[in-house]
Amino acid sequence: MKSFKIALAQFSPRIGNIESNVQKMIELANEAKQQNADIIIFPELSSIGYPAEDLLLRPSLSKRTAQAFEQLNQVQDIMLVFGFVNQNEQGQRYNSAAVLKDGQVLGVYNKQNLPNYSVFDEKRYFQEGHQHLVFEYQGHRFAVLICEDLWSLNSIQQLSQLQVETVLCLNASPYEVGKPQHRVQSIQSVSKELHLNIVYCNQVGGQDDLIFDGSSFIMNHTGELAYLAPSFKEYLAVVDYDLESKCFQSKDSATALETMAEIYQSLVMATRDYVTRSGFPGVILGLSGGIDSALTLAIAVDALGADKVQAVMMPYTYTAAISIEDANTQAQRMGVTFGVAEIHPIVNSYLQTLYPFFGNIAADSTEENLQARSRGTLLMALSNKFGNLVLSTGNKSELAVGYCTLYGDMVGAYAVLKDVYKSIVFELAKYRNSLEETPVIPERVITRPPSAELRPDQKDQDALPPYDVLDAILYAYIEEDQSQEDIIGKGFDAATVKKVIRLVDINEYKRRQGAIGPRISSRAFTRERRYPIVNEWPAGC
Amino acid sequence: MKSFKIALAQFSPRIGNIESNVQKMIELANEAKQQNADIIIFPELSSIGYPAEDLLLRPSLSKRTAQAFEQLNQVQDIMLVFGFVNQNEQGQRYNSAAVLKDGQVLGVYNKQNLPNYSVFDEKRYFQEGHQHLVFEYQGHRFAVLICEDLWSLNSIQQLSQLQVETVLCLNASPYEVGKPQHRVQSIQSVSKELHLNIVYCNQVGGQDDLIFDGSSFIMNHTGELAYLAPSFKEYLAVVDYDLESKCFQSKDSATALETMAEIYQSLVMATRDYVTRSGFPGVILGLSGGIDSALTLAIAVDALGADKVQAVMMPYTYTAAISIEDANTQAQRMGVTFGVAEIHPIVNSYLQTLYPFFGNIAADSTEENLQARSRGTLLMALSNKFGNLVLSTGNKSELAVGYCTLYGDMVGAYAVLKDVYKSIVFELAKYRNSLEETPVIPERVITRPPSAELRPDQKDQDALPPYDVLDAILYAYIEEDQSQEDIIGKGFDAATVKKVIRLVDINEYKRRQGAIGPRISSRAFTRERRYPIVNEWPAGC
Repeated sequence: MKSFKIALAQFSPRIGNIESNVQKMIELANEAKQQNADIIIFPELSSIGYPAEDLLLRPSLSKRTAQAFEQLNQVQDIMLVFGFVNQNEQGQRYNSAAVLKDGQVLGVYNKQNLPNYSVFDEKRYFQEGHQHLVFEYQGHRFAVLICEDLWSLNSIQQLSQLQVETVLCLNASPYEVGKPQHRVQSIQSVSKELHLNIVYCNQVGGQDDLIFDGSSFIMNHTGELAYLAPSFKEYLAVVDYDLESKCFQSKDSATALETMAEIYQSLVMATRDYVTRSGFPGVILGLSGGIDSALTLAIAVDALGADKVQAVMMPYTYTAAISIEDANTQAQRMGVTFGVAEIHPIVNSYLQTLYPFFGNIAADSTEENLQARSRGTLLMALSNKFGNLVLSTGNKSELAVGYCTLYGDMVGAYAVLKDVYKSIVFELAKYRNSLEETPVIPERVITRPPSAELRPDQKDQDALPPYDVLDAILYAYIEEDQSQEDIIGKGFDAATVKKVIRLVDINEYKRRQGAIGPRISSRAFTRERRYPIVNEWPAGC
Repeated sequence: MKSFKIALAQFSPRIGNIESNVQKMIELANEAKQQNADIIIFPELSSIGYPAEDLLLRPSLSKRTAQAFEQLNQVQDIMLVFGFVNQNEQGQRYNSAAVLKDGQVLGVYNKQNLPNYSVFDEKRYFQEGHQHLVFEYQGHRFAVLICEDLWSLNSIQQLSQLQVETVLCLNASPYEVGKPQHRVQSIQSVSKELHLNIVYCNQVGGQDDLIFDGSSFIMNHTGELAYLAPSFKEYLAVVDYDLESKCFQSKDSATALETMAEIYQSLVMATRDYVTRSGFPGVILGLSGGIDSALTLAIAVDALGADKVQAVMMPYTYTAAISIEDANTQAQRMGVTFGVAEIHPIVNSYLQTLYPFFGNIAADSTEENLQARSRGTLLMALSNKFGNLVLSTGNKSELAVGYCTLYGDMVGAYAVLKDVYKSIVFELAKYRNSLEETPVIPERVITRPPSAELRPDQKDQDALPPYDVLDAILYAYIEEDQSQEDIIGKGFDAATVKKVIRLVDINEYKRRQGAIGPRISSRAFTRERRYPIVNEWPAGC
């Protein structure tokens, strides 16, 4: 029995690119060896990345997995614990982990608890395993678990009864606000009560709408946090196990992030990964002088660098002079390319073409949508011509109630604020401004009353309740699944609650055609809240 | 022991509207009683409709289900066999059937085989049942199964061993081409081998992208089809069981449909249900003189009536005179409102506004997209102003390879031909024309070479392989999950196959933002083919 060093390889796999992931795993193993690590642990399904969705059904998977093993077999003098898809001859797949040393498979573990709720669909792809994997190495007793297994008290109690000392847990645990701390806190009591050390290695990186935050950690059986890895970046950490204290030894842990820093960094990473992994040279967005596009611009610049970001202001009659001024100011402060394209001639040509159909019918939201759609088409034309990806700038509050124009301000490949309520948009803008002496977002953008500027003197609050009220109702309805009756019972105005819920219900079709965007809440739209478009469920029940 | 009559209630539930579905079920039970039926069987989950998706997670479900039972308890003198969500006190849900007579629950069956592949996500919502329900009624031995259970040989063999005579099977089995016949044929041999009569009652109606065809049937244990209900409409059939022959007695069965009739009727029903159940007064679509919009128009008129359909022709420089002529002819023949809106001034205003950005860079697909997006915006404006829902007219071949413009010709709430390959579009157009002496679609629309008319003398075949080749490659790759290598091995040109597969792969983001549309194939996009947008899976592996 001797002390040992364990390496946590918090890395960001390329979904489906087994070859490049395995190459990266080998590099990380070599790096860990240089730091004298005895064992290296990778995230869940590290060889293929999580979630690979229906790519898992492609016929070449097992052949390519076999090739991955051949390559990993070449690694010497360090034990590898990594994730892969274990497919048997009947074609049944398991979400599995292999323990590999010097070309010998010392054990394979098949995940026993397959999440199939929220954003997860593991029962679509995998069969459940039914056996623990416990092994001794250097006189120490280890077990392997995969993500959801760790949250099954049953699984982990059994490991304790099997005299396991350290659990190696491979994870692809999606981020949501507060989740990094929440994981540590939840594991703390279990770990202490069952006298288990937990080595928790999480995937990091943005994958479509999902964010994996990393925030890997090691919890000692004493309930002390031995190590915390940084969030939102790749990191290789080598941690010592001390034989005398029977504990992992604390060393330069990351500091847990404040909430706004955490959210902001999550959006930056998600945007960077989406844009760069889609192979786009940069992004373009419409800068309106409002807070949503201002925040989106800041995130884009922090994600990609100012030279990769193009902003366009597209004013119309109802655009305030201060909007143009503020957009200009922010673009200059952030050093991005900035252009102005007036949309009057375009809107007018639509109105003239439509006159034979519309006659003198009074203007309504149709004419407002024409402005938004002229802007959307201009952005797409600039994107088509120069190759930059369009970022959509709408927030969750708007999208929830449909206060946005399909094919207008909703155009774009990635909607950075899609899961961010408007109240949080304000907080994030203030947070970003607090990072530099000269705030990058002009103060007035944050303080003036929000407006879509689609008709004279329009304010969001003419059509919607104040955002703090709106967001509280939305949160109760969407995230907490509360009924209309319950929400009114909390003291909100009944007519307001009914209106908001009705708007959420009837705008499902619009959200379904919206761009994807990073999930930061406990219930984001689309992947996680799967509502039929056509349905007659009684409102708010 | 005596003869009895069984009623199959092939009906179309309103998703989530338990109250109205139960009301309808009571009416159908009364109608069946008037025809002296002893038993009435409804489809799977008939009280809430299938699939209710995440509405099943709403907190009011069990209270509303209890109310449904109270109402159904009032029905006298007929046995009801219907579907409901059975929720226990721990909140676990089962996909269940109740056998109810004169206010007494004679038995409850929990579905044992929960499909969680293809379009199905039942493990997201339900627990598996573990017990058969076998009961005697009027001296006859019945069992209840729910949909997937019937396709589990294990389940049905057990029923045979339990001396069951007739299986009552409640279904919500989604349509795909040939499925009505396929079900009957598959059940035939099982039924005969195990000496079981099978009473198969299927849901009917369109629900978002899913089509339920009905096509309910009764198969005798002799392997003879006793009864076949019509496809694509609600129907109440009362069938006699004859004690002497121990068989159900054949009576006015529907004739199975020819393939094109089957597909056409499926699209008509899906379109009607989507539009009317979304509460729209009618539809609008862009009529280009091409075959896709011509077929979509015919389907819309057959679904809703000519007075509910508005067609708009939006010509530009590259629109052939015969396109305008043919569009006009079809609109007249079908008796729909027809308008013309030239898009020159709009496209020009875009080009002028973009000139400071584009300068003299050569025209490319950017300018083509401007035409498509001008049209999309006009359609949306007409929809916003007059309230008609926009039907999108693109087909599966286009959508697969991205030969369409996002926010342009892709605008719309419902894409009628979304899952119909171009080769089938031609067949369907010919089929529709064969129904009337004067073909509703001008012959030239079918015979001229397809063109998007976005530049001079453009033909689809300049950019794409001939549609029969394209569709064969797409079918092998999408529906059959074949690899690039396999498809080339079948004799297709290697460069063509590679190009097509690459186009399918890179256009996932575009499809994700497209309108939903009725599924008729064994692998439709989106709900059923869940590919990550960002992924590095090697092309065609």
